[in-house]
Amino acid sequence: MFNERIHNFNAGPSAIPLAVLKKAQSEFLNFEGTGMSIMEMSHRSKEFEAVLARAINGVKSLLNIPDEYAILFLQGGASLQFSMVPMNLATPGKKIDLIQTGVWTQKAHKEAQKQAEVHIAASSEPDKFMRLPALNEIQISPDASYVHMCSNNTIYGTEFNEYPKPPAHIPLIADMSSNILSRPFDIQQFGLVFAGAQKNLGPSGVTLVIIKKELAERADKALPAMLQYRTYIAENSLYNTPPTFGIYMLALMVEHLIALGGLKAVEVRNIAKAKTLYDEIDRTGFFKCPVKKEDRSRMNVVYRIKGGDENLEKEFVQEAEAAGLAGLKGHRSAGGLRASIYNPVEQASIDALVKFMQDFERRKG
Amino acid sequence: MFNERIHNFNAGPSAIPLAVLKKAQSEFLNFEGTGMSIMEMSHRSKEFEAVLARAINGVKSLLNIPDEYAILFLQGGASLQFSMVPMNLATPGKKIDLIQTGVWTQKAHKEAQKQAEVHIAASSEPDKFMRLPALNEIQISPDASYVHMCSNNTIYGTEFNEYPKPPAHIPLIADMSSNILSRPFDIQQFGLVFAGAQKNLGPSGVTLVIIKKELAERADKALPAMLQYRTYIAENSLYNTPPTFGIYMLALMVEHLIALGGLKAVEVRNIAKAKTLYDEIDRTGFFKCPVKKEDRSRMNVVYRIKGGDENLEKEFVQEAEAAGLAGLKGHRSAGGLRASIYNPVEQASIDALVKFMQDFERRKG
Repeated sequence: MFNERIHNFNAGPSAIPLAVLKKAQSEFLNFEGTGMSIMEMSHRSKEFEAVLARAINGVKSLLNIPDEYAILFLQGGASLQFSMVPMNLATPGKKIDLIQTGVWTQKAHKEAQKQAEVHIAASSEPDKFMRLPALNEIQISPDASYVHMCSNNTIYGTEFNEYPKPPAHIPLIADMSSNILSRPFDIQQFGLVFAGAQKNLGPSGVTLVIIKKELAERADKALPAMLQYRTYIAENSLYNTPPTFGIYMLALMVEHLIALGGLKAVEVRNIAKAKTLYDEIDRTGFFKCPVKKEDRSRMNVVYRIKGGDENLEKEFVQEAEAAGLAGLKGHRSAGGLRASIYNPVEQASIDALVKFMQDFERRKG
Repeated sequence: MFNERIHNFNAGPSAIPLAVLKKAQSEFLNFEGTGMSIMEMSHRSKEFEAVLARAINGVKSLLNIPDEYAILFLQGGASLQFSMVPMNLATPGKKIDLIQTGVWTQKAHKEAQKQAEVHIAASSEPDKFMRLPALNEIQISPDASYVHMCSNNTIYGTEFNEYPKPPAHIPLIADMSSNILSRPFDIQQFGLVFAGAQKNLGPSGVTLVIIKKELAERADKALPAMLQYRTYIAENSLYNTPPTFGIYMLALMVEHLIALGGLKAVEVRNIAKAKTLYDEIDRTGFFKCPVKKEDRSRMNVVYRIKGGDENLEKEFVQEAEAAGLAGLKGHRSAGGLRASIYNPVEQASIDALVKFMQDFERRKG
């Protein structure tokens, strides 16, 4: 039982900035003098439409998104996008290209195969996903409908620093669920990016989609309305009732990032946080990060103790939890330890973790 | 600007009980001593799994649901169910039967037609949806895959008190988005019921589905995993990250109903609330409800002033809003006035509305 807030290293759903939570808590019963909670009002009210505009404009300004892209809020998470992307963007008779970098692209692969033939343009599976394919290893089919990739792999702790550049007629699609808004990137390199909200954007239940509008016209109009991007573009994400509270929280999240100075400032923070933690991991050899150095993620720091001592790792997780450091267990498919340090995780939490690691090593090393 | 909470007659998203909001607000920064918000924790944590169990068991106990049914939480609202139901339950070569009672069944019709041929088993469209088809008017095809209906029509203010009884091999499917948990019903009359949460169940972004498990086996396994009911059954709604905060709110909502005495007690309250309002509407003829008496909804009370005086109706809505009575404008496709009085709306709010109506009539009548 904790009376205070703990250090939250959960992989997702994960930490939300305390300032954002406090703001939402303070207006939970009465949003801006309306006499009701934001949850209790129509999605077609002027108050909610203003919140939606705040969310859209916040994302737009943070990422500098030009008007030929639409910013949409959907439901169903990245998992539904694994089907919606091929349903909308696969062109009959053409292949889908996919860069295999872990469990999330494997899931995307499985769903894409239901819609079209998939060509693996590169894979780091032979290396157990402990690295990313180099850009020059990626073999894109000349007639691919699009290329699917995942920009950050939460489970294996890898993150792309540069993105592949397919020919202009082949859009690049990225699952950015776990690193969106953690650093600047040029949206014009992409045809579509999507992200489940529950890492850097707010509570689970909202999916951010940024799409080059013209791509939405590829889809067969006989698809279910709820599964066509064009529906959300035409109705500004208000075709049906959207997850209003989630969009509200997302608006507060993006405004928080703007207040921090925008994505360049956020990136500086994230680089510093990751460096603190990786430096400690690399310091003595007691801890070890199995990921190739250039591909290490700034969001999910995956590591082992003494080359994979599972008992010691279990002790570490339990003792850390008791000391107020939560969520440090590795994903069940990778084992070991993992600290997820998305935007909302403060440097102070990293410092507390490093202090705990040093103490643990002193006692058990 | 209101410093106090107002009387909330919104059609959806709509009122949430103050006790539920206060409970959620009180543990917003630290859920049950975990040191984090419910929003910030893994959907696979024991704490969230306990919340999910509370939501499932609450629904199960309120509706007395036997084990051959599964209680699932999805995303995408009723609008996605309009496609998922036919994608999963339409049998090749058979028709889908549909009872046409308003805008929501028309939307369901449009999506169902993309999957199979649809037979209109009955329609009250010729009566502008101001009544429901009588049970003996409903002509179910002998070889229908299933029958689709909407139990309560928010826009037109009609509600079924009895349900059609198709032959045993033809499941009845109901969209109960706007009256679920407002009264008891026998789930065994239905193959599947679904409901967007944003009326009686909590915030938008969660869809409750109650399905007879064997029906989920009708679906082609080549459908996207996220669009197959069997995925949610197999994984207890945890195939991917569910909308955790919405499910938590739904758990609080159902526990609130249990504390009120269960659905029989809730129904008594709802009957009394609706009677108070309809009695006032019928009292002098200044207000008029256009809906056939036996079909009047207990959830959405639709009415007009002086046979449809739009200027007076506009004045009514504006003055009511200024007096702290919000959400009384009729749906854009029906016009007039509408008071949505779902479970969370208290008798005191109805009394305040009646008092306002009497005062308005005295001044303008």
